[in-house]
Amino acid sequence: MPARSSETRGYVIPIGGAEDKIGHRRIHRRFVDLCGGDDARIVVIPTASRLDDTGDRYRTIFTDLGAAKVEVLEISERKCAESEEALGKFEGCTGIFMTGGNQLRLSTFLGGTPVATQIRRCHARGAHVAGTSAGAAFMSEHMIAFGKEGPRPVAGKVTLAPGLGLTNRVIVDQHFRQRNRMGRLLTALAYNPFVHGLGLDEDTAAFINKERVLEVVGSGGLTIIDVHDLDYSSMARADEGDVVQLVNVKLHVLTHGATYDLQNRVATPGR
Amino acid sequence: MPARSSETRGYVIPIGGAEDKIGHRRIHRRFVDLCGGDDARIVVIPTASRLDDTGDRYRTIFTDLGAAKVEVLEISERKCAESEEALGKFEGCTGIFMTGGNQLRLSTFLGGTPVATQIRRCHARGAHVAGTSAGAAFMSEHMIAFGKEGPRPVAGKVTLAPGLGLTNRVIVDQHFRQRNRMGRLLTALAYNPFVHGLGLDEDTAAFINKERVLEVVGSGGLTIIDVHDLDYSSMARADEGDVVQLVNVKLHVLTHGATYDLQNRVATPGR
Repeated sequence: MPARSSETRGYVIPIGGAEDKIGHRRIHRRFVDLCGGDDARIVVIPTASRLDDTGDRYRTIFTDLGAAKVEVLEISERKCAESEEALGKFEGCTGIFMTGGNQLRLSTFLGGTPVATQIRRCHARGAHVAGTSAGAAFMSEHMIAFGKEGPRPVAGKVTLAPGLGLTNRVIVDQHFRQRNRMGRLLTALAYNPFVHGLGLDEDTAAFINKERVLEVVGSGGLTIIDVHDLDYSSMARADEGDVVQLVNVKLHVLTHGATYDLQNRVATPGR
Repeated sequence: MPARSSETRGYVIPIGGAEDKIGHRRIHRRFVDLCGGDDARIVVIPTASRLDDTGDRYRTIFTDLGAAKVEVLEISERKCAESEEALGKFEGCTGIFMTGGNQLRLSTFLGGTPVATQIRRCHARGAHVAGTSAGAAFMSEHMIAFGKEGPRPVAGKVTLAPGLGLTNRVIVDQHFRQRNRMGRLLTALAYNPFVHGLGLDEDTAAFINKERVLEVVGSGGLTIIDVHDLDYSSMARADEGDVVQLVNVKLHVLTHGATYDLQNRVATPGR
């Protein structure tokens, strides 16, 4: 991440999908508060979704929670991500929210466009960027495009693609417990063990601040996979379908209120 | 790439593999000259290769071409990439050369280690980093780990993984003409069209300077795929095995002496 933005950049907030939208809405509430509460100006990007009402649904949620202004930016083809009108929606925004759906819609519609640059700029100047499910996957430099379920890392069972690039410190997987994704996240890390893996359950978010300390918010668990001390990955000699050997992976499972320092690799459980 | 390094950083030099090692050795000669000729201090990293003599072979080549000092850094497991001795070999180096073999050996042995950080630091302070074949694939932020041959982009036919991260402006493919890799490079770009694709034939290199202008050196061709103006990629709706639709891809084929400005997207043919 460019040094010039490290002083002012906003939070990166991946959410594991299916977050509570009708009860206490702990994650959305925290997001709106962070974005300024009554002064929050939020842009919702429902591009990942194929449903027509996704944007409006989030508009209602954030408005109910007190946001001053909620803009919905519909981008249904690449050309839409170049217009002055689209770029103008980000003016003065304090938060950006990317919905769920298919992360490849986000990467193929937004990748390399002025809107993608605009999101990175807003984030660098302090806007907080949240994404749920597909939106969470898309946020980092390396995203999981798709993959197979299961507990064990298996060669060829995950497909990585370039993401938006707000951080290159983590690879995120979502619906983690619900869709049994330990194996595919381990597989993703086995290629090049330089990032942390974040496995987010549904209704669970990681609020990552500019010092790269994350806080867990929500009703589920966050699995952190730390491969900093990895001694061995067999990915270079594995054939498709082979179980991938990994030696010395460190794991944390954290819940609401816990924190994790991605820089110094220190976990502090919630109470 | 961090702004702080842009003033001093060295060349990034991906080579398409099988470069001439016994004749005029145009690519190696140019590399040694760039690294200071008689003052060149080069570190060879043969990690990608399983052959015992790969490092020595390059030591002989670079020594023959006049380099002052050539160190071979053997890294055959992750622990080797942490030692003070390994890090010390980079002291004062003006060039780093990563050999061919399997790029997953590079990413699994070096990824996240102090040696990987050391290479990035050397590059940021001005050392030139070259890589051939697997070494070329590994240099960028997004690398092609493996994939299927063929002319046409097909969903699921390429596997991307995180690379060393010296640049996030290009995805490199090597042995391009010889192994018929147009399809897999297009597939890689179809996920998120924000980078250029560089398809390097054997005995062909792209010397990319710090202003992000590349020059073609060698006997083969360089295919540049520019997706900046892409109107459509069907990757989000493609099933495995489907041909991926792409609308408005720009292509250049360049040979020795040609240049391409990655920032301004201007190609100038060689004579």
